[in-house]
Amino acid sequence: MKKFIFDVNNNRQSKEIEIMESVYARNNEIAGKTNAELTKKGVFVVNVMGAPGVGKTSSLLQIIPALDRSAFVIEGDIESDIDTKKLNDKNIKTVQINTGGACHLDSRLIAGTVSELDLESCYLFIENIGNLVCPAEFLIGEHVKLLISNVTEGSDKPYKYPLAFEKTDIILINKWDLLEYVNFDEAEFVEGVRKLNPAAPVFKVSGKTGEGYGEAVNWIIQKAGQIMKK
Amino acid sequence: MKKFIFDVNNNRQSKEIEIMESVYARNNEIAGKTNAELTKKGVFVVNVMGAPGVGKTSSLLQIIPALDRSAFVIEGDIESDIDTKKLNDKNIKTVQINTGGACHLDSRLIAGTVSELDLESCYLFIENIGNLVCPAEFLIGEHVKLLISNVTEGSDKPYKYPLAFEKTDIILINKWDLLEYVNFDEAEFVEGVRKLNPAAPVFKVSGKTGEGYGEAVNWIIQKAGQIMKK
Repeated sequence: MKKFIFDVNNNRQSKEIEIMESVYARNNEIAGKTNAELTKKGVFVVNVMGAPGVGKTSSLLQIIPALDRSAFVIEGDIESDIDTKKLNDKNIKTVQINTGGACHLDSRLIAGTVSELDLESCYLFIENIGNLVCPAEFLIGEHVKLLISNVTEGSDKPYKYPLAFEKTDIILINKWDLLEYVNFDEAEFVEGVRKLNPAAPVFKVSGKTGEGYGEAVNWIIQKAGQIMKK
Repeated sequence: MKKFIFDVNNNRQSKEIEIMESVYARNNEIAGKTNAELTKKGVFVVNVMGAPGVGKTSSLLQIIPALDRSAFVIEGDIESDIDTKKLNDKNIKTVQINTGGACHLDSRLIAGTVSELDLESCYLFIENIGNLVCPAEFLIGEHVKLLISNVTEGSDKPYKYPLAFEKTDIILINKWDLLEYVNFDEAEFVEGVRKLNPAAPVFKVSGKTGEGYGEAVNWIIQKAGQIMKK
């Protein structure tokens, strides 16, 4: 077996890294402003990340009705408004962002969207593009990141996609109802998570049956209380 | 519901699009060279794409032993060599690329890797990073793209991630063994595919049971025959 690690020493890579660093710096500056403004208004922001089809929307449909305050959703998709319709059908206020190709949400898009909304003392869930790689690199104004994995993806995901697992504050393992039909090794998964992230709680849930969300909801309510009090 | 489409008219976006266009042009030029060199050597190249955990490696483990010639795998991952070990365990020659963070393989990485291999009259499968968005934008020297989706992801994926479905030459719907436990609407999925891609065949498979790969293997063998004869 051979390994080729991305070479950062040749000109091409250096130039691209320089551009990326300035993109990140600009992005994080805007994210910081958005976060400060929303904190002042009592809005607790959750950046919801995970691969395509992992159950981001189905988890929001379980979490939001169980919270102690109202919630708003910014729904990120490359195309379509399928998930916005699902949320609206359950009377959850949602605004759709279509990136038209971009693989993640960035702070400028979110700042522009938030500036048109009248948010006050509520939760704001931002459902990122279905992608286990790119969204983890961009702050968008969140107080916490919520990462969703699922048992059908396999228990090796923390080892293969480490950044998302390292950066997140809370992890849901979704589709727990399918556990008996797939090869998912919970101990391997959690061990992989712990190597990257000693603190993030891991909750087993099922968007289909509603099982397991209670503890995750409690965690979100408590975290919001701690952060908004400061 | 509101939609915010990525604005390409302000300075920031225009500059980024310009940089991206030059990245694509340079990438495609190298991909073209790799493709020409490998075609001359009788090497048929398949770019294997799909989201994390969709079953790219498990599908290769089913497809490769059923082919009419030997096969080599370039295994792309952000980190780890878990899949290379799985392939090596089945005596499939595999070389690991770790991108160390990058969300897709590019043609320069593949050209560098291929130049160190002694390939002749065989299949070369390149397993891309688990990501349903970014890999679709980058040619890497392939003759065909093989896209893997699965029933647990849901049948709305062609509508939400159109580029991958538009660009691919063949589609596998994996984890068909889980069909009865999930909400997957085959007609909705195929209708979404057909709006983007009138020709790509769609095969239902199960990496777990081995079911359904026969027709996909035949398609690959025939396609390789057609393209390599030219």
